[in-house]
Amino acid sequence: MKNEKAKVRIIPLGGLNEIGKNITAIEYKNDIVVIDCGLKFPDEDMFGIDIVIPDINYLLNNKEKVTGIFLTHGHEDHIGALPYVLKQLNVPVYGTRLTLGILETKLKEHGLLSTTELIIVKPRDVIKLNSVSVEFIKTNHSIADSVAIAVHTPLGVVLHTGDFKIDYTPIDGQQTDFARFAELGKKGVLALLADSTNVEKPGYTMSEKVVGESFNRIFAKVEGRIIVATFASNIHRIQQIIEASRLYGKKVAVSGRSMENIVQVAIELGYLEIEEEMLIGIDQINKYPNDKVVIITTGSQGEPMAALSRMAACDHRKISIVKGDTVIISATPIPGNEKLVSKVINQLFKQGAEVIYKSLADIHVSGHACQEELKLMQALVKPRYFIPVHGEYRHLKQHGELAMSLGLPKENLIIMENGDIIEANRSAIKKNGSVISGQIFVDGLGVGDVGNIVLRDRKYLSQDGIVTVVVTLSRENNSVVAGPDIISRGFVYVRESEGLMDEAKEVVRKVLLNCEEKNIKDWATLKSRIRDELRSFLYEKTKRRPMILPIIMEI
Amino acid sequence: MKNEKAKVRIIPLGGLNEIGKNITAIEYKNDIVVIDCGLKFPDEDMFGIDIVIPDINYLLNNKEKVTGIFLTHGHEDHIGALPYVLKQLNVPVYGTRLTLGILETKLKEHGLLSTTELIIVKPRDVIKLNSVSVEFIKTNHSIADSVAIAVHTPLGVVLHTGDFKIDYTPIDGQQTDFARFAELGKKGVLALLADSTNVEKPGYTMSEKVVGESFNRIFAKVEGRIIVATFASNIHRIQQIIEASRLYGKKVAVSGRSMENIVQVAIELGYLEIEEEMLIGIDQINKYPNDKVVIITTGSQGEPMAALSRMAACDHRKISIVKGDTVIISATPIPGNEKLVSKVINQLFKQGAEVIYKSLADIHVSGHACQEELKLMQALVKPRYFIPVHGEYRHLKQHGELAMSLGLPKENLIIMENGDIIEANRSAIKKNGSVISGQIFVDGLGVGDVGNIVLRDRKYLSQDGIVTVVVTLSRENNSVVAGPDIISRGFVYVRESEGLMDEAKEVVRKVLLNCEEKNIKDWATLKSRIRDELRSFLYEKTKRRPMILPIIMEI
Repeated sequence: MKNEKAKVRIIPLGGLNEIGKNITAIEYKNDIVVIDCGLKFPDEDMFGIDIVIPDINYLLNNKEKVTGIFLTHGHEDHIGALPYVLKQLNVPVYGTRLTLGILETKLKEHGLLSTTELIIVKPRDVIKLNSVSVEFIKTNHSIADSVAIAVHTPLGVVLHTGDFKIDYTPIDGQQTDFARFAELGKKGVLALLADSTNVEKPGYTMSEKVVGESFNRIFAKVEGRIIVATFASNIHRIQQIIEASRLYGKKVAVSGRSMENIVQVAIELGYLEIEEEMLIGIDQINKYPNDKVVIITTGSQGEPMAALSRMAACDHRKISIVKGDTVIISATPIPGNEKLVSKVINQLFKQGAEVIYKSLADIHVSGHACQEELKLMQALVKPRYFIPVHGEYRHLKQHGELAMSLGLPKENLIIMENGDIIEANRSAIKKNGSVISGQIFVDGLGVGDVGNIVLRDRKYLSQDGIVTVVVTLSRENNSVVAGPDIISRGFVYVRESEGLMDEAKEVVRKVLLNCEEKNIKDWATLKSRIRDELRSFLYEKTKRRPMILPIIMEI
Repeated sequence: MKNEKAKVRIIPLGGLNEIGKNITAIEYKNDIVVIDCGLKFPDEDMFGIDIVIPDINYLLNNKEKVTGIFLTHGHEDHIGALPYVLKQLNVPVYGTRLTLGILETKLKEHGLLSTTELIIVKPRDVIKLNSVSVEFIKTNHSIADSVAIAVHTPLGVVLHTGDFKIDYTPIDGQQTDFARFAELGKKGVLALLADSTNVEKPGYTMSEKVVGESFNRIFAKVEGRIIVATFASNIHRIQQIIEASRLYGKKVAVSGRSMENIVQVAIELGYLEIEEEMLIGIDQINKYPNDKVVIITTGSQGEPMAALSRMAACDHRKISIVKGDTVIISATPIPGNEKLVSKVINQLFKQGAEVIYKSLADIHVSGHACQEELKLMQALVKPRYFIPVHGEYRHLKQHGELAMSLGLPKENLIIMENGDIIEANRSAIKKNGSVISGQIFVDGLGVGDVGNIVLRDRKYLSQDGIVTVVVTLSRENNSVVAGPDIISRGFVYVRESEGLMDEAKEVVRKVLLNCEEKNIKDWATLKSRIRDELRSFLYEKTKRRPMILPIIMEI
């Protein structure tokens, strides 16, 4: 008992009060175990941003302690930030075979494959580090090869479920490792961190198998070509589409870059089973009768650049929708994507396709546990402390209430925020300060060079455009040598507003004259007067507030 | 039978393949009857646009035939464009009492009240025009005083349902006028235009009364203050909140401009019943114990400027959320608003409020008919021709299929697009050409001065910002007198990118030098070279594509 004062620290650097960007540090003495390292897709008001990654300053400042990054599964929101993070923090990455297979494709694109140490693990493997060890435990999710991660510390086990659901009839036959969860629960789990995504949904998430039955039913009836859009990473869904195709003697083609990549990886690693002669190239689809062709494609979220959206907009190089096609959208729109998906559905209908989507049939199930499954996890693990993760505040709060309804004492529930330092030992858990955390914007090649000022300007520009005022002044006596010229973009349609622009020039001229008379040589003052006068003038005339950019050149 | 060749024309100028902006012209000989005149809220990519209204060029070109605008109910998507349209087309407006009461507030704001002829009608009223007459028929919807409109022509009745649902236990006791619909159906209806909004939903929409029962249940249990957010126009919902408040001896205060406006109008016109001493001002809420206060507020869609969002963000001047408050969001997020609503829910939870929202209780019902109600309308009216309206293409198509499943012949179904001219007589219906239709953007004071070019620029600016290049050249010999200066906004954070900007200046200098040497005096050519060179340079360095605006001044 010489480490009486030692504590386990749990530091979430992302994934709380947000969807995505999952990353959590579990720290004990000279070990920092990092669980997952995901990206987030930008909110609508993050104009021009490609992706958002977590701020890992805390890990960089404690580089020598970070013993590895441990992955729960291969979704973007759990592995997508790795290509950026590994450039700054080159540590071993542990994951199951498919997870690392998917990661490899990414690392190759970023030229990081040769410099990264990837360590393949399987469920029940235990990795011994300095003073802790890390164990992987089989779970089910909407991607194959998902695991929970248990960090064994001298003070007890910290168990992170990752994303999970309970599927008694999973496609690969590998159920959640109930026995191991129960065993850990029996020995005593110090803290459980569990997925809160579906906590608002009562009951159980249906088995993936239900979707396969729907495919079989639909494939049996459809006479034309079948196009199924789903998430590229949902290998089990893809396997079921293949099974249904086999049952009805159809060939399968794959469309969309991420779908092609993942299908290839999954076949190579043995996660997808398909006879060679059944899988045809997208160029070959026209060699077969329509009723013998199934196309699996990306674009189930209505992403404008994805294959399905291109087909819907008659913009796909190789596939044209024809009357008699049946399109199955095997996904639910992620909040924020409803309008995009709806647009694609409308376009497909207009082109004469039949479209089958979630509100009409059982063609999608969630990958996350609903209330009864979450209760089962609590009942198996019986944690001393409970920390809901993966969700917005509403989800975390309700997950906490669910645990309390099963007997968790209120003081043993912690609702964290990104950057919180949670310290726990056998007798207590509490917040104790915080570390830097946050979001780093990736825009083109720039990582972190776009900040709030740039974003604020983009937003401002998007609302009413920009009005640029240029004038050349004499250094000697302030007199106007050329200009003022006024050029606007995104403000008004200029041809119809010549009068307005002439009046605006007059406003600027007056300011210039006034400054010349008063001999104001301070360009900053002059610019701010131009900005103020022009702003009020334009607002009065148009009730719009364009960005005003005065530029003074002196000769 | 001298008008053998006369035809009824149905011309939708808005509301098809979109949600909102509802307006339809029914034309027979020298009568054009306009049904509704609504606005649409801008899509996310319509940057800076306040509202979208229909293009009414067709009506303006046939001004002398337009005999009136006939309103089905008082929602924005049915009356919201009137203040703009009436300025160009001053015709009488017919509507029920509450509909016109709500409209009056709007017309007052636009200074149009004195010049507009408003004619109050009630269900079963018939307005005789030149060669047609217009009849109003009671329906149910999520706003009181809604009606369907029947245009009686010598060729038969054209019946437009407006937005509707079937409610056997409506709050005001006034059921849909089943008898009149059936009577028209018996006599023979030439064409039915019916609301398709909820066609994807099986079964029946629940009665508004169900929501009242939920309120009673919740109000009985809650011990603190109650805040209910709902649509301002849903008078029946508001009445039920008042009833529940009365039952438990609570006072009611109202917050949010549109809520205050409509509640006032509704009380004045007798559509809302509340004892004077029960309704308190928002300034008085602190004079009563928390458990005696109910606040009815706007913001159920998470609109950032609405009262509830302000409370959630601690930004409301008069109401602060305190622990113990219960907030009821009595609405479902309209597609596209999910994230905004979710943000408000999270903020309210964080402040310690309990939040009750749709996924947790029966606190909202739709105002639109589901499949079984739509079938009832078909069965009552038995139209010769059927034209689904109010919906995206997917809804129109499925509504058509619903009608055909009840026996409508395929050739008697018409799916229209905005601007189509549909011609019908007793023996046939067909599309026959089209008129100009479309969307007019309202931005500040400008109506129609923002077009696709301006919007495209705003979108472009929002992605990667703008880079302005200014240079003053000598008129004589093309030599550079001042500059080049480069100023960017929304592109990169300038302080961190000085090097990049210096290099960019060098790129511009080279172009200028080259042009000076070649004696190029054509500024357009010079500008386009600067733009091209700078674009490739910046893309190579950053993989971003800012708008590039070269400005040349000459002296």
